Amino acid sequence: MELFFSPMACSLASRTAIYEAGATVQFSMVHSKTKRTDDGRDYWQINPMGQVPALRTDDGDVLTENAAVLQFLAETWPQAGLLPDDRVARARVRQWLGFIGTELHKAVFVPLLDAHAPAEVKAYAREKAALRLGVLDAHLRDHAHLAGDYGIADIYLTVVLNWAPYAGVDLAAWPAVQAWQRRIGQRPAVARALQEEYAMFQDEQRRRVR
Amino acid sequence: MELFFSPMACSLASRTAIYEAGATVQFSMVHSKTKRTDDGRDYWQINPMGQVPALRTDDGDVLTENAAVLQFLAETWPQAGLLPDDRVARARVRQWLGFIGTELHKAVFVPLLDAHAPAEVKAYAREKAALRLGVLDAHLRDHAHLAGDYGIADIYLTVVLNWAPYAGVDLAAWPAVQAWQRRIGQRPAVARALQEEYAMFQDEQRRRVR
Repeated sequence: MELFFSPMACSLASRTAIYEAGATVQFSMVHSKTKRTDDGRDYWQINPMGQVPALRTDDGDVLTENAAVLQFLAETWPQAGLLPDDRVARARVRQWLGFIGTELHKAVFVPLLDAHAPAEVKAYAREKAALRLGVLDAHLRDHAHLAGDYGIADIYLTVVLNWAPYAGVDLAAWPAVQAWQRRIGQRPAVARALQEEYAMFQDEQRRRVR
Repeated sequence: MELFFSPMACSLASRTAIYEAGATVQFSMVHSKTKRTDDGRDYWQINPMGQVPALRTDDGDVLTENAAVLQFLAETWPQAGLLPDDRVARARVRQWLGFIGTELHKAVFVPLLDAHAPAEVKAYAREKAALRLGVLDAHLRDHAHLAGDYGIADIYLTVVLNWAPYAGVDLAAWPAVQAWQRRIGQRPAVARALQEEYAMFQDEQRRRVR
């Protein structure tokens, strides 16, 4: 399999899931400005939305959309236990994947992280943060993980919360979220994936500045 | 099962899936302004996000998030054939559910339909429409449905496209999308669900004006 990623983008969740599973795939970096892969391929031809992640399966199918890719990875390596077997428990994981993808990632963080978004757009996104992070905080006050055992929903959430300082969102207002983040961040796969992509991200930033 | 819905909201997709399956559930209407159900319950106590759909299963579990609810419904009535068995085909359905939920519903339509969103927010959302509807149009030029046979991703898309005239999005620029919409709109379950909720929506609007 081949995973297309950009450093610190939501594709970091796929890398983390792959490390949790102890699996090996080809990682292909996509430069977010040029939409070219490291080896010069035009990424628009791979994903017409230009977004990461995209996952090329061993059969050559290209899958996109973070929630779909994460579920596919979890199903590929069931022994990693990243997605429960029970039907209601799986629905609950999908509920949280949906919440993170639509309410946090798209409604709050995309506009806040977009350097071209006008101030009104950022204010509109910022207004949405309190209800959403409040709901999350209330849930994490009495749940160790988003849905049952640790899994792909938790992995996606850690990636989105990584963006908070860059988006000007101070998580101190949501102490259960912050405590959860610190705890999950200690998992070796989470820490390793973040450390590796953060180094690549800094390297990319440095090359842009030159 | 009990489905919490508001007329013409994305919960219309769940109603359509239920009609496609020929199933019977309890429909409980949530007034979008007051967040009260028709029988006076406080909906914030049922879904802390205040959004529809929510699905109360026969075991009393409350599931939220449209993509999760639709997959749960399709799994409840597999004979309706709304979700394929094959692993890659299922991943493809999830990919389109993700695309519709994050790229169309949240990034484009929520701000355009929000009466309180400032002009800059609407302009930012409108700018995003062309790439997204263009990707969709290119796909539907040579696919009869979003992913294999007709199913829950198509159902979700019909609901989001219903909003286009209210959002000031003229679908004439995307003829394959429009042709697909006309064709899918002829399915009895799609037409019946839309007709019923449109009547409820008009009724709700009339009561508000008085």
